[in-house]
Amino acid sequence: MNSEILIDAILEGNRLALARLLTHVENDSPEGRAALTELFPHTGKAHLIGVTGAPGTGKSTLVNQLVLHYRKTDKNKVAIIAVDPSSPFTGGAVLGDRVRMRDLAGDDGVFIRSMASRGSVGGIAQTTAAFTQVFDAAGYQIIIIETVGAGQSEVDIARLAHTTIVVEAPGLGDEIQAIKAGILEIADVLVINKADRPGVEHTERALRSTLELAHPTPRVYRHHGQTMTVDTSKVDTNVWIPPINKTVATEGTGIADVAESIAKHAAHLRVSGDWASRDRARLGSELEAALQDALMNHFFENIKKEKYDEMVEKVIGRTLSPHEAVKLLLNGNSKQENS
Amino acid sequence: MNSEILIDAILEGNRLALARLLTHVENDSPEGRAALTELFPHTGKAHLIGVTGAPGTGKSTLVNQLVLHYRKTDKNKVAIIAVDPSSPFTGGAVLGDRVRMRDLAGDDGVFIRSMASRGSVGGIAQTTAAFTQVFDAAGYQIIIIETVGAGQSEVDIARLAHTTIVVEAPGLGDEIQAIKAGILEIADVLVINKADRPGVEHTERALRSTLELAHPTPRVYRHHGQTMTVDTSKVDTNVWIPPINKTVATEGTGIADVAESIAKHAAHLRVSGDWASRDRARLGSELEAALQDALMNHFFENIKKEKYDEMVEKVIGRTLSPHEAVKLLLNGNSKQENS
Repeated sequence: MNSEILIDAILEGNRLALARLLTHVENDSPEGRAALTELFPHTGKAHLIGVTGAPGTGKSTLVNQLVLHYRKTDKNKVAIIAVDPSSPFTGGAVLGDRVRMRDLAGDDGVFIRSMASRGSVGGIAQTTAAFTQVFDAAGYQIIIIETVGAGQSEVDIARLAHTTIVVEAPGLGDEIQAIKAGILEIADVLVINKADRPGVEHTERALRSTLELAHPTPRVYRHHGQTMTVDTSKVDTNVWIPPINKTVATEGTGIADVAESIAKHAAHLRVSGDWASRDRARLGSELEAALQDALMNHFFENIKKEKYDEMVEKVIGRTLSPHEAVKLLLNGNSKQENS
Repeated sequence: MNSEILIDAILEGNRLALARLLTHVENDSPEGRAALTELFPHTGKAHLIGVTGAPGTGKSTLVNQLVLHYRKTDKNKVAIIAVDPSSPFTGGAVLGDRVRMRDLAGDDGVFIRSMASRGSVGGIAQTTAAFTQVFDAAGYQIIIIETVGAGQSEVDIARLAHTTIVVEAPGLGDEIQAIKAGILEIADVLVINKADRPGVEHTERALRSTLELAHPTPRVYRHHGQTMTVDTSKVDTNVWIPPINKTVATEGTGIADVAESIAKHAAHLRVSGDWASRDRARLGSELEAALQDALMNHFFENIKKEKYDEMVEKVIGRTLSPHEAVKLLLNGNSKQENS
């Protein structure tokens, strides 16, 4: 093993070794990749919690309060990965960090790591997945992946988590409401933050009716003039209806309820077998992404740069379509391999 | 050629043939792929305009007004591709469509196509690129790609365009301002819509100071007590400073100025050579994406399903890391090819 990355130190939770490895992983260095491979057998224990929602909902404050709660109650080690996919060039990862530092500084059981999003969405999701593995191996029982925004990238990142929390706030306007409809479908726990603001009832009503559409509650049948409710003990217990929690994160109100909803969801995942199937889906797509990278690298190692550039020129000159160019490139390449 | 897709009809601008082909392309059917290859030599003429910005800025209304303006003035055929990456499951593509229909219905020179975003961001970007090629070949001189949101996905899609317009509006809150910083870096033209609202001066000041950081204006030197400005005729004309236009799209105010900024940017791209380099970058990444797909397809065609599943199981059981699994998969595969 490389002398710079001390696997044992990471497994023991050494913060300096951890910070150093995360940088290696972010830069996708050979040392980082080798360390990930060594750490992988030690993963699979952490509860991955995704927190997402539109800008202005107060996600960061909520996450901070939740972490303080965890530290006070069950003493679990908590890692926060703050992903900011909104600023692809300068990196917007400092957003909210100062507030964080004030609240959580000096607690050895908390590790905060921001990640700006240079590179593609795929790249961010891959790095985030690798970060969770490092923290998992280092004994962080709770890993919170916080994303800013409410687009496809957030959804992709949320797919990494066992439990996804979607944060809302009253009065964010109609178009944002429309966007919610999509993000709601990935929510396991809903939080209406800033619940002391006007319009909170309206927000809750809107969320409930959207949820109703996605998760119909047991029907009430009318039978011979009598109202007959369905025996709820026979209702499929494998169905999880996302609870709606109301919080005022700046004052710490409602945080314990959110933590309880998260714990209940974890229990539900274990009982229903969904914990395993989410793990399976996550690792399956991770394997696919790694395969894709390896195939592309292998391809570019085995083709002459001039030949590839020639194809690019033909596509730009519109004498070959991208599809035709790929066909020619792959035929040429396989010939090369057979010789 | 498949009898269902009539290449000649598309080149002549037949709307029914066009609509049918777009569906084939969206479903990635073999007929669609074949048609794209046949149409490709006819592409490269359209001006691709990306329009993006945070929710609530009034993008759709602005796009509608811009299209009405184009139709009234230079009679160019205009296509709108409305991408909504915010709702990955139900598809949020209907957003704003009714307004559209009212304003632009009955004009044969306008074609509107919405796209919900099932699948990955990469998939959306690929389909959007394919759509632009179809419209380009069908003689649409202006193709507007409109995205909802302000995340990485929008940036990826904006990269398809020659000219990217970022729409802002006064009073969208601090966190959205922070997000803007990232999206601003891809802007060629800035529009402050809803400019009749309070706070417009503040928004404009904020935008100007962010722009100043990104594109410093010629310095004013103080020389022996005299103010000496730099001779602007010597300033590098290849530098494009994004203009800021103010509009009230609901009333049609300021739309002509936006159209003028877009035309100026197109002229700048032609003169500076950036038109060609943006085309080159776009087609280069399109080729790479097609290559990636082909390599993955080729891999899965040449491996036994059982062998792949066995590897997935080992990764889930944490006895193999994804990286190790890929190595084993690729070695096995190349042996297969050599035999």
